[in-house]
Amino acid sequence: MHLQKEIAQQPAVIERLLNDGKTLTEAVATAIRDFNPGFACIAARGTSDNAAHYAQYMFGGLLRLPVMLATPSLHTVYGTPPDLSRALVIGVSQSGEAEDVRTVLSDANQQGALTLAITNFEESPLAQTAKYHLPLLAGRELSVAATKTYTAQLTVIAMLTGALAGNGSLWKDLGALPRLAAQALRLGDEIAAWSQRYRYINRLVTLGRGFNYATACEISLKVKELSYIASEGYSEANFRHGPIAAIDRGHPVILVSPHGKNLAGMVDMCQRLNELDAETLVISNNSDLLGQGRQAMTIPSTPEWLSPILAVMPGQIFAMQQALARGYEVDKPRGLSKVTITE
Amino acid sequence: MHLQKEIAQQPAVIERLLNDGKTLTEAVATAIRDFNPGFACIAARGTSDNAAHYAQYMFGGLLRLPVMLATPSLHTVYGTPPDLSRALVIGVSQSGEAEDVRTVLSDANQQGALTLAITNFEESPLAQTAKYHLPLLAGRELSVAATKTYTAQLTVIAMLTGALAGNGSLWKDLGALPRLAAQALRLGDEIAAWSQRYRYINRLVTLGRGFNYATACEISLKVKELSYIASEGYSEANFRHGPIAAIDRGHPVILVSPHGKNLAGMVDMCQRLNELDAETLVISNNSDLLGQGRQAMTIPSTPEWLSPILAVMPGQIFAMQQALARGYEVDKPRGLSKVTITE
Repeated sequence: MHLQKEIAQQPAVIERLLNDGKTLTEAVATAIRDFNPGFACIAARGTSDNAAHYAQYMFGGLLRLPVMLATPSLHTVYGTPPDLSRALVIGVSQSGEAEDVRTVLSDANQQGALTLAITNFEESPLAQTAKYHLPLLAGRELSVAATKTYTAQLTVIAMLTGALAGNGSLWKDLGALPRLAAQALRLGDEIAAWSQRYRYINRLVTLGRGFNYATACEISLKVKELSYIASEGYSEANFRHGPIAAIDRGHPVILVSPHGKNLAGMVDMCQRLNELDAETLVISNNSDLLGQGRQAMTIPSTPEWLSPILAVMPGQIFAMQQALARGYEVDKPRGLSKVTITE
Repeated sequence: MHLQKEIAQQPAVIERLLNDGKTLTEAVATAIRDFNPGFACIAARGTSDNAAHYAQYMFGGLLRLPVMLATPSLHTVYGTPPDLSRALVIGVSQSGEAEDVRTVLSDANQQGALTLAITNFEESPLAQTAKYHLPLLAGRELSVAATKTYTAQLTVIAMLTGALAGNGSLWKDLGALPRLAAQALRLGDEIAAWSQRYRYINRLVTLGRGFNYATACEISLKVKELSYIASEGYSEANFRHGPIAAIDRGHPVILVSPHGKNLAGMVDMCQRLNELDAETLVISNNSDLLGQGRQAMTIPSTPEWLSPILAVMPGQIFAMQQALARGYEVDKPRGLSKVTITE
């Protein structure tokens, strides 16, 4: 099973990025500083789009750089691209084959924007189109469901943020990641043991906010891809504005909230869900929140901005276990292929 | 039942906006042109967030103005707002009470951005915080699920786009909307007749792309709020990148695609879904696509950029019919209140 192996490779991939990717990342950061963008625009699909959500909080919160997510159809379908001339335009794609993402970067080049690709393939069309390329160094990913390339994308974004911030303490925190990631993955047996309980769920909600909004979306997508469950990821704040109506007794809800500024709101949400008799599953490193959940997945402590790299891992394992419990083909979900090209 | 009345009021609200809102809209457009923003940033939650998606395509495609969706937690939770000083910052909220949206605008004011509120209440905190206010003129909305205020938000965004484009033909197209909206609502009886078939669905996917991505998200949210179905809205392109795996025989899928540049892609997607024996429901004005769907909802013809104002209406009716078929309280879904304040 490739998926299991690729999940297990994550600490090594992160370590490789930290060791071999730093010089290039700093060179790209210098080019970005010289360009002095007014905002960033990120084009991505699927899992890579969730990495883009992470970048919204990293660039927005740590660098004060506003981030928009691209609207590729304005480039590819309508032929009326917005003016990105003052933007840092980033295309994120595991394969680098996403044609619509490539077109956004191609338009951006013509407009005079600064373009950057983040892919696992140096020779891919996307990497070739962008002025700069940061490789994921993840080795070939054979499972259709992306895992190690997702955490590699987050790591590249975190490294780039660290380089742009010019802040040595960020780099120091990054250095601890490979060890902490290995620790997070030790949850595997525990999750395998209790995940049978969820063999027959047909819907799932995953909640996060801020830095871990990306985590909620990515866990939700992984569960959906692998187990075909109607699985939705929300910002906890948006969830209160409507979707919470769908929650009743036994509805499974994963809450992702490591220690940090969002914690109080998530503790409150978990209590509210418990009052509705929802089935709460918590991914956190905070004992108050963990204590509220019916199932607790304890991840290692790290600064909040790095926590998404660890917090997604129990979710990846949960998604894999649901597919195994159902007897689905884990490495090749129905209806999907590794490279999806949309225009 | 307030909901049914408010759905029926939509043509009148649109007409009122077109008649009474034009002068103010043009004044706001002049201020925006003078400010000359590098991009727009829109803060909104729930239904209003779907209106923001519409603005991404309107401003991006018709004005070439890039649009980012705000990340309110960077303002309210983390206290590290991105630099919006060169942005047009718009807060969209039916009630104008959304505290996090208000904080985004308050930060933006301090940074020197140009701020605009779009609400149904002139005296609301959001309207009072923003430099400019465009009212929805929708009259009080009593149903918790927003309908007439949503199409009013879209109309305000369309009018503002028309005013900024300084394009007389856009205004002419807008003028036909009240009549076309009344025509779209005549689908009500037909939808009521066949919607019993869906009494027991527990999941639903809604697809759109481009201008009607907003429509897919909004129909999905309406169904979820009113009938508690696990209902998800996707960009058709993103859907191909993973979520399509969850589709099997009988899975209900609503496809929203009026005549326009996205049509070919949606016809292709509908064929693919039919091959998977999904249950396809089509909202369109194109006979090719309508002919592909198991259920067809025919809306009036209009330029694609205005079609979201009409295309959502059959979805609102479908959502209401599902709640009625299930015996749910239509005007007050469980767990929700009309004003949701998140920080």
